Amino acid sequence: MMRTIDLNSDLGESFGQWKMGDDASMLGIVSSANIACGFHAGDPAGILKTVEAAARNHVVIGAHVAYPDLVGFGRRNMDMASDELTASVIYQIGALQGLAKAVGTQVRYVKPHGALYNTIAHNERQGMAVIKAILAIDPTLKLVCLANSPLITLAKQQGVSTVAEAFADRAYTTEVTLVSRQLPNSVLHDQTMVAERMLKFVQTGMMTTIEGTEIQLAADSICVHGDSPGAVDMAKAIKARFTQAGINITSFI
Amino acid sequence: MMRTIDLNSDLGESFGQWKMGDDASMLGIVSSANIACGFHAGDPAGILKTVEAAARNHVVIGAHVAYPDLVGFGRRNMDMASDELTASVIYQIGALQGLAKAVGTQVRYVKPHGALYNTIAHNERQGMAVIKAILAIDPTLKLVCLANSPLITLAKQQGVSTVAEAFADRAYTTEVTLVSRQLPNSVLHDQTMVAERMLKFVQTGMMTTIEGTEIQLAADSICVHGDSPGAVDMAKAIKARFTQAGINITSFI
Amino acid sequence: MMRTIDLNSDLGESFGQWKMGDDASMLGIVSSANIACGFHAGDPAGILKTVEAAARNHVVIGAHVAYPDLVGFGRRNMDMASDELTASVIYQIGALQGLAKAVGTQVRYVKPHGALYNTIAHNERQGMAVIKAILAIDPTLKLVCLANSPLITLAKQQGVSTVAEAFADRAYTTEVTLVSRQLPNSVLHDQTMVAERMLKFVQTGMMTTIEGTEIQLAADSICVHGDSPGAVDMAKAIKARFTQAGINITSFI
Amino acid sequence: MMRTIDLNSDLGESFGQWKMGDDASMLGIVSSANIACGFHAGDPAGILKTVEAAARNHVVIGAHVAYPDLVGFGRRNMDMASDELTASVIYQIGALQGLAKAVGTQVRYVKPHGALYNTIAHNERQGMAVIKAILAIDPTLKLVCLANSPLITLAKQQGVSTVAEAFADRAYTTEVTLVSRQLPNSVLHDQTMVAERMLKFVQTGMMTTIEGTEIQLAADSICVHGDSPGAVDMAKAIKARFTQAGINITSFI
Repeated sequence: MMRTIDLNSDLGESFGQWKMGDDASMLGIVSSANIACGFHAGDPAGILKTVEAAARNHVVIGAHVAYPDLVGFGRRNMDMASDELTASVIYQIGALQGLAKAVGTQVRYVKPHGALYNTIAHNERQGMAVIKAILAIDPTLKLVCLANSPLITLAKQQGVSTVAEAFADRAYTTEVTLVSRQLPNSVLHDQTMVAERMLKFVQTGMMTTIEGTEIQLAADSICVHGDSPGAVDMAKAIKARFTQAGINITSFI
Repeated sequence: MMRTIDLNSDLGESFGQWKMGDDASMLGIVSSANIACGFHAGDPAGILKTVEAAARNHVVIGAHVAYPDLVGFGRRNMDMASDELTASVIYQIGALQGLAKAVGTQVRYVKPHGALYNTIAHNERQGMAVIKAILAIDPTLKLVCLANSPLITLAKQQGVSTVAEAFADRAYTTEVTLVSRQLPNSVLHDQTMVAERMLKFVQTGMMTTIEGTEIQLAADSICVHGDSPGAVDMAKAIKARFTQAGINITSFI
Repeated sequence: MMRTIDLNSDLGESFGQWKMGDDASMLGIVSSANIACGFHAGDPAGILKTVEAAARNHVVIGAHVAYPDLVGFGRRNMDMASDELTASVIYQIGALQGLAKAVGTQVRYVKPHGALYNTIAHNERQGMAVIKAILAIDPTLKLVCLANSPLITLAKQQGVSTVAEAFADRAYTTEVTLVSRQLPNSVLHDQTMVAERMLKFVQTGMMTTIEGTEIQLAADSICVHGDSPGAVDMAKAIKARFTQAGINITSFI
Repeated sequence: MMRTIDLNSDLGESFGQWKMGDDASMLGIVSSANIACGFHAGDPAGILKTVEAAARNHVVIGAHVAYPDLVGFGRRNMDMASDELTASVIYQIGALQGLAKAVGTQVRYVKPHGALYNTIAHNERQGMAVIKAILAIDPTLKLVCLANSPLITLAKQQGVSTVAEAFADRAYTTEVTLVSRQLPNSVLHDQTMVAERMLKFVQTGMMTTIEGTEIQLAADSICVHGDSPGAVDMAKAIKARFTQAGINITSFI
């Protein structure tokens, strides 16, 4: 039985005058911050501010690398060539490493964002491009992967450590995949229910699916989303329930 | 009398399908490569290729940081706030450091590009913003400055090492400044004349001005431009003349 | 004594996933909508939605043209060449005309945004570049200018109709200019006071300055900002006070 | 037997300081110019210059609309939502219409570029998004489509006139499709052979495939590429051969 678990959230996603999420509040709750690197969101000054706040809150930071698509927020599939993808991921990690160094902290992991995250969960060519980027810039960086996805095996074969991730507010299928956002009831909104569900998951490794079956899921981190209304409250509810049950929220590093 | 001098050139300035300059040829001539960092030019895959070729040619690399202005090629003044400029410069240096690390080399200096270069030569606020970026990410990085500019003193006061730079193909005034590109004869095109002029400069520290006077100029590096027609030939002519005269082309590092 | 006045507001300034302002509410209040054209803000789908809503609300639309600077929201001075500025303004007006045509409405005026607005109020070179753009694409488009600025005369000399604009929430000096945002009390926040102040202005043409003097100001339109907290409430307060006093809010077209 | 044919080429694809193709030469050869609209290539000032030159050369212009992907030159598939794609296409057409109006000419057709061209040749959802854009902004605009593609039927059903297009320098299969660029001999380089091949095609409607079979192809326009080395020479060779054989090069408008 796990007595500790990591909570991660997507942060640093403002861009210039446009604000997104409540980074300050989230950094008081989570143990890991996936920081936008400028390709789907995040301008240098805004990223720097969030990295600084993360360091102050002793929150571990990771590079939330993405396709180069600001207007689409990195949520649209892009058929990038492998060498372009590898170089783009190195570029983004390096940029964040620079900003992290400037405030005395460091990047410890990589979590691909949006369409890139979903694509490499199963697309081996693009997955290899991301893995190559990690091996080239810093092989000690961990790769956060969708729990139960083929990417986990691929990364391990290449010598990259992985962190399997579950989603607090998403429904699962009996086939141990996420229910598509296109389908009804794919996203969960009831904070108390979600907190209870996550507690059971952390204590037993079991998750109830949308069909009502029970699946076993191996995950070292739980993602709480940062940009939807009620996101901070849901994260707080999960943390409170965990704390009450003696579960320690701490980074996977 | 100097027996060695650095030759630097702006490289990595292609962008996606658009090609600029002849990086491969230039890397066989110069001792330092100012590498575009994606803000005025340079896409990750293209930058990576140039960094790799620089490493193979034992050419030292520097971060050619710029205002965020692809369509204007970083040549237009932009009134950036100090904290935005500092963070943008850190971001660019970090991105290049990442790509450099990926091919086993490292960034050794910073040379601001275009309008940023010209502005901080005399603008203290923006100059300080760039200096702060260097101090924050890596205080051992040298800053390449316009020879005889106030920036040199400012950087030294802040503890940043500087490299003064002369321009091979530009005319100088008696006031030890560059003749504005808007004026006639500001840019020199005769390779033999330029090579001879640079040789005299390296041997004596004296430069003939557009008015015909002689000025003394302290410079540790000579910039040969990379993107104009005849650029490679001019760089070759300078190198040949230097070699013939026993001047060694070697980095200031 | 004026019995009608135009109220305008900056709209369509969301960008992809990033939201800004409350376009739907503002379109129920103002008579003119300055629509972002994609250079400082606004993506095509978002612009189209706002243009459609403006048409539905019988609100006149204008092109809120800007420097190409998303990350700086068009608020940073950029030293654009005249031909680049002219072409960029034509491009933006054309793009908005296309989206307007698609929903059966049309662009009736041009209001430069942010740094471009402030710069051309007094910079003749850039002012001429914008005027040339209007003459080239549609000489019937009106140009919204800062009240009392030299641009008004320049535009009229070139045959472009102008609309002088006052700002509801900004303090004025005795020299009939806006108090700089850098200074204290430059921005007004008290809705009742602002509504009363604007009513007096519309009825008398007189504005009380920050020094307590009275100045005369000729303006055909009042700008109510759309993106600050309380913006909608302030606009509502002004409209309510005007309506109560028998002032009709209607476009200058 | 056709006695006239249209030759089209992709132009206006420079971007800021980066040059691409030889627009001036091509405008002396072709009858239709597909003008980049800023999403895959083309900055406003550069587009305006090309549109002006096209008008001077009595070359008909079309909007070369694309996915928003400068660094990928619009050659990467992007999974855009339908309403975003429609609005983006309207925006691009409108922008080009504005620039065309500024020099006294007008946009007469739409030719999607790169990945968008290839995708909508068979993808009905994205094809409909482009067709909707044309119907919304100007239903008299013709849509240039890959010869023999399902898009032709789809567009006609929706009331949009189409122009079927053959490629001068591409090999065809017996299934009346282009040979993939990934395969050997997919691109033809021999100018004399290509000119002869195009002449036969114009005179007979028959094309020899890569397998040596003969296929019938209905096309009203032939695309000669503008950005590869030798592009202008190949276009000249085709024009010379056509002229010699009494075939008139003239727009499909």
